[in-house]
Amino acid sequence: MLIVGVGLIGGSLGAAVRRRKLARRVVGLSRNPAQLQSAIERGILDAAIGSPGEIPAETSLVVVCTPVTRIPLDVRGLCEHLPSGALITDAGSTKDRICTELASLATRKPAFIGSHPIAGSEKQGHAFADPELFAGRTCVVTPLPAHPDATTARVEAFWQGVGMKTERMTPAEHDRALARTSHVPHVLASVLAESLSPRDLPWVGSGFRDTTRVASGDPGLWTDILMENAAEVRTGLAEIRQLLEQYEQALLSADAGALTRHLETGKHLRDSVPQQVQSDRLGE
Amino acid sequence: MLIVGVGLIGGSLGAAVRRRKLARRVVGLSRNPAQLQSAIERGILDAAIGSPGEIPAETSLVVVCTPVTRIPLDVRGLCEHLPSGALITDAGSTKDRICTELASLATRKPAFIGSHPIAGSEKQGHAFADPELFAGRTCVVTPLPAHPDATTARVEAFWQGVGMKTERMTPAEHDRALARTSHVPHVLASVLAESLSPRDLPWVGSGFRDTTRVASGDPGLWTDILMENAAEVRTGLAEIRQLLEQYEQALLSADAGALTRHLETGKHLRDSVPQQVQSDRLGE
Repeated sequence: MLIVGVGLIGGSLGAAVRRRKLARRVVGLSRNPAQLQSAIERGILDAAIGSPGEIPAETSLVVVCTPVTRIPLDVRGLCEHLPSGALITDAGSTKDRICTELASLATRKPAFIGSHPIAGSEKQGHAFADPELFAGRTCVVTPLPAHPDATTARVEAFWQGVGMKTERMTPAEHDRALARTSHVPHVLASVLAESLSPRDLPWVGSGFRDTTRVASGDPGLWTDILMENAAEVRTGLAEIRQLLEQYEQALLSADAGALTRHLETGKHLRDSVPQQVQSDRLGE
Repeated sequence: MLIVGVGLIGGSLGAAVRRRKLARRVVGLSRNPAQLQSAIERGILDAAIGSPGEIPAETSLVVVCTPVTRIPLDVRGLCEHLPSGALITDAGSTKDRICTELASLATRKPAFIGSHPIAGSEKQGHAFADPELFAGRTCVVTPLPAHPDATTARVEAFWQGVGMKTERMTPAEHDRALARTSHVPHVLASVLAESLSPRDLPWVGSGFRDTTRVASGDPGLWTDILMENAAEVRTGLAEIRQLLEQYEQALLSADAGALTRHLETGKHLRDSVPQQVQSDRLGE
């Protein structure tokens, strides 16, 4: 199989596929020779190539793990170099624009279908690659109406092979849900960190530490994700701003009952987070 | 010594003082007989009393660990039953209103001086009491200009005895700083949890889990803290709303550079959080 882009996700995927012997060979494609060399030395890849022209003829599955803004172009650049039976998917954190731009490939050969393995961390680069990054987590697969069911089933079987549960959603529904569970929380964590004065750092405790943890993520990567899902993120941020205004109003009018109702609603939702995520899941 | 209120903080303090043998006896005062009985059975207290009239004559130090809104009244209720050499402090998460209301006790006997041991968790009740809750963490002591230095030094020595570092701040400066590092983050975590639709729970990952962890805290306790520090919390929330509007504007105008600058600033601040807090500190 071929992995395009060998960062944290691509590297972890290579390590997972090799550990589980899910492919005869794991080949990495990147424009960065040093990155490829290091990935081979770490046992993440069997072989490395620097351009689509070098893709091995027997390649049947490709996972594109590049930044979300580059995925459509990277997929198109691969097509003419792949055998017609090959299937291309991706690991991007947004789906609607990618899947819309590549909709014509739903029924072509080679075909493209969108995926989002919900796994990751605030760490960057394949130095943090983890062959168990995907185990027990969920991969959202986003087929379009035109996709043959066999195509969807084939990509689901791959993600299940690295230990994931799979769920089907439309690309738009994926982006709406992930705006709420991942993209808006990232902005809030970052804003909270940005609002802190350095002189207040000595008074920071574990609450602030956890609330802002994801703000350590890669600013370039997150700029791309936010830009790709701009409309849903804006809607989510506006909802948060309205809730904050309600808190400010309740504080101004000393309305303890309103504060308690908001805090109770938040606690109820937070206490409903699935136990699996509570204990050991490393999704984002 | 006497501990008033035997929840997570009061219970942990009793356990810490007993483990370190810092007092001949640890007496708990609460209106809840079942809570006192359970604290004695858990080895958190040596003895329990149900009203200030039963305070032992040899009591020299009192720590009031009741909710912040009740602390001034609880302190005044203790005074007439304490020997004149006794010193009263508290463990409240806000300081300005408490210390202002009790300012006349700075030079009286018994005397009151404000403290805030920055330690805790989202758990509630002395069933989660931890004798090492305070070890290695910071206690802010908030003397007024009228406090004799010996009074401040005496309360600092007590907190150092349970393993804390101590720092002096004015009550107002304490409340300004803690609004930023603790109270505003709590509201953001709660608002983020409140904004989630239950149907999106399956897509929640570790990012959302950590960003909202503190939202599981006691709504009643946090209502009190927010009400006590209303002005500073409102200022902090308004600043957060302005930053969110800047994100929304950048998304609307597809200004990737502005997004990246915000995310980089947030990352820089987050990466500056002291390593001790990063690894093992359980403050709030």
